[in-house]
Amino acid sequence: MTNPTAAMLVIGDEILSGRTRDSNMYHLAGELTKQGIDLQEVRVVGDERAAIVAAVRALSGAYDHVFTSGGIGPTHDDITADCIAAAFEATIDVRADARALLAAHYARTGAELNEARLRMARIPEGATLIDNPVSVAPGFTLGNVHVMAGVPAVFEAMVASVLPTLTGGAPLLSQSLRVMRGEGEIATPLAALAADFPDLSIGSYPFQKDGAYGANIVVRGAEGARVDAAITRLARELGL
Amino acid sequence: MTNPTAAMLVIGDEILSGRTRDSNMYHLAGELTKQGIDLQEVRVVGDERAAIVAAVRALSGAYDHVFTSGGIGPTHDDITADCIAAAFEATIDVRADARALLAAHYARTGAELNEARLRMARIPEGATLIDNPVSVAPGFTLGNVHVMAGVPAVFEAMVASVLPTLTGGAPLLSQSLRVMRGEGEIATPLAALAADFPDLSIGSYPFQKDGAYGANIVVRGAEGARVDAAITRLARELGL
Repeated sequence: MTNPTAAMLVIGDEILSGRTRDSNMYHLAGELTKQGIDLQEVRVVGDERAAIVAAVRALSGAYDHVFTSGGIGPTHDDITADCIAAAFEATIDVRADARALLAAHYARTGAELNEARLRMARIPEGATLIDNPVSVAPGFTLGNVHVMAGVPAVFEAMVASVLPTLTGGAPLLSQSLRVMRGEGEIATPLAALAADFPDLSIGSYPFQKDGAYGANIVVRGAEGARVDAAITRLARELGL
Repeated sequence: MTNPTAAMLVIGDEILSGRTRDSNMYHLAGELTKQGIDLQEVRVVGDERAAIVAAVRALSGAYDHVFTSGGIGPTHDDITADCIAAAFEATIDVRADARALLAAHYARTGAELNEARLRMARIPEGATLIDNPVSVAPGFTLGNVHVMAGVPAVFEAMVASVLPTLTGGAPLLSQSLRVMRGEGEIATPLAALAADFPDLSIGSYPFQKDGAYGANIVVRGAEGARVDAAITRLARELGL
């Protein structure tokens, strides 16, 4: 059985201008790996309707799940919900269930549920709400697309809400070996290992520390005994 | 005159598995903004030939420049150079100029220029080398695609080598206003401002600090006087 596949779409001019450093990709990648969902592609686009709609359609058609971050707040540049609706040719309007969540929240805090805040209750027809325990305004799932906020604390809370509802796969097992030699010294045994263990993913991640070269070799696969066998052979061949 | 456009392609399983936190996107985004080159899309794909070739073709056709990071080392999982050659239907082999750089380097350090290290001299026909002052093995430019290493220190050095060779545009000017109110309170004047200044990009980036809501409003544009006028009007409307 192969694991479910996923893509992520990060939406926001502030990432592309270098103003903001994205942290949501790194968070989602780690969470999906734990759940055995195979993140295969990430795209980042700006707050542009045509770019968002095209990316949603392409990714939604190519992967089992798509996770988006950004663009679901109350301001004029928050256009994600409308773009998702357009991508699926769904209608979108203020929805009673989302409006009720916001109304209860603002009644509690004493702020006004004005027209701008009501934008956050615009949810496409047929979507399921994603719980937001941090700041109430919900995300949503439409088809295979999970739409979440860009603010990291809210994004992470929404990921925690939505992931348990998805069917994961077998989490990949991994072992790593830290080798204090340049990659050029170990590339030949590594290539032979990769050829002999085609069921495993064998990656080499070089680093430099105090002027010396080294690499972390990471072996990943579904069967623990195979991962063990590959790491044992490599350590023996490298005299570790 | 409109500014040149760009896309970035990050290549590496380690980013998608959550093992490594990418920092090259943030670095490149900031450098391109300074030079007036408009980064419009980023994609991240794994060490998969078909995915890399398809992404290079799509981005190379859609933007003025494409910058890649990752996959040009000596190990079996470093397949970027071959994929770029395939995307452009160019031949690729060990090239004399790149080989000479590596040979001089390893002669100096006393290490052997073995078959694995020679892989780093595989450069597509017609490409121009990108200088690597950190660890010698060069990047290259083929067509409108600039191919660079994934290790951040090397990536940043290669970006510094290649950017001065490109024609930039007018750097966008920006001013920002920090507002200690929730976005829902300021969305209406912001939307009116965006409608009255269609030549400017007006973004709202919310944050939470010590339990209070705020937003940074960023106004960007090519003309300083227009950015000034928008910021002044907004500050007045918000009573700041």
